[in-house]
Amino acid sequence: MRLRNKPWADDYMRDNSHIVVQEPFQYRGKWQSAFNKEQPLHLEIGSGKGQFIAGMGKQHPEVNFIGLERVKSVIVGALKKVLDSEAENVRLLNEDAQDLRDLFQTNEVDHIYLNFSDPWPKTRHEKRRLTFPAFLDQYKDVLKEEGEITLKTDNRGFFEYSVASFSKYGMIVEELSLDLHELNDPLNVKTEYEEKFSEKGQPIYRCKARFQK
Amino acid sequence: MRLRNKPWADDYMRDNSHIVVQEPFQYRGKWQSAFNKEQPLHLEIGSGKGQFIAGMGKQHPEVNFIGLERVKSVIVGALKKVLDSEAENVRLLNEDAQDLRDLFQTNEVDHIYLNFSDPWPKTRHEKRRLTFPAFLDQYKDVLKEEGEITLKTDNRGFFEYSVASFSKYGMIVEELSLDLHELNDPLNVKTEYEEKFSEKGQPIYRCKARFQK
Repeated sequence: MRLRNKPWADDYMRDNSHIVVQEPFQYRGKWQSAFNKEQPLHLEIGSGKGQFIAGMGKQHPEVNFIGLERVKSVIVGALKKVLDSEAENVRLLNEDAQDLRDLFQTNEVDHIYLNFSDPWPKTRHEKRRLTFPAFLDQYKDVLKEEGEITLKTDNRGFFEYSVASFSKYGMIVEELSLDLHELNDPLNVKTEYEEKFSEKGQPIYRCKARFQK
Repeated sequence: MRLRNKPWADDYMRDNSHIVVQEPFQYRGKWQSAFNKEQPLHLEIGSGKGQFIAGMGKQHPEVNFIGLERVKSVIVGALKKVLDSEAENVRLLNEDAQDLRDLFQTNEVDHIYLNFSDPWPKTRHEKRRLTFPAFLDQYKDVLKEEGEITLKTDNRGFFEYSVASFSKYGMIVEELSLDLHELNDPLNVKTEYEEKFSEKGQPIYRCKARFQK
């Protein structure tokens, strides 16, 4: 995806530093202090244009949400959506977190969302997939004992790989949906991608899994 | 499925007792003696009309196959297919095995196939699904340590249930295929159902899983 350059992005993020957290690494271990209320902490990795995290924030005021997005010209779209939603429980981080453990302490997170992650279909790129064991190491560490991962994707190969990767790692696959939208789950908040792909009639796959600690 | 009555079925099976094993419970613990060669033992639960087990027998002379089918008027079709295939490594059992442990000793089986099993979609029938934990108890017992289960189905709900059931039981889900025939796997032997459903363009789901002993 070619992205337009957005020279105003830095100013826009700084002007809304109550949402786009500046110097986020300083919050490691004390993320609750970045929110109005102490409540469960849910993390979306790769928030894109923010439809999911803004929608979830609105739907679940009893949860604190953090959306991680490394692309500046994309996260400003998420910022706009969060502002428009008036949700007060969403924070965005414009970081390329090579290792989540630099941003979060052990057992700091309650739930991780992987939404339409890059599938990296070539075998030689397997290590880049967000469900490769080296990433699961990170998730296991930052998630609480009962913490869960919810993965959604339209990419069959990535889904097949991810479910097997979870299981081989020793995680429990608790739920599988091979055509999410047929469930008509009123609580399912769609990402932008999800909306686009499901309008084309493509199935959306979802999986919930947790570690055994 | 309404089945025609086949009064000649008993005679036909008895006349081919080198394939349809008579008094199979006597072979518990010594199934290798029912075959020409000692080699890995693969079991299909619910062989139907036998296209899978006859095809597998032909394709894998290095394996001994047992096909279990409780419906007499169906298993005679399987018998015909096995005879036509000239495979010498396939045996059929016309039994309604309530408990596989009555037919097989601990660690006697190398591989179990569940092909297009009845999905029993109603929640109150969950206990009848062949991937309900009480059945997994049986499979775990009769399978060898490195033994695997391969499940194929066209039924999405049954597949979703089964993968989660395997995982929650503590099994490792090693492989998932959500559109088996797109793989064009030349080694995939199709069942009658599979052929019919995939001709209609419906995806066939496959999962390979194993116990951790």
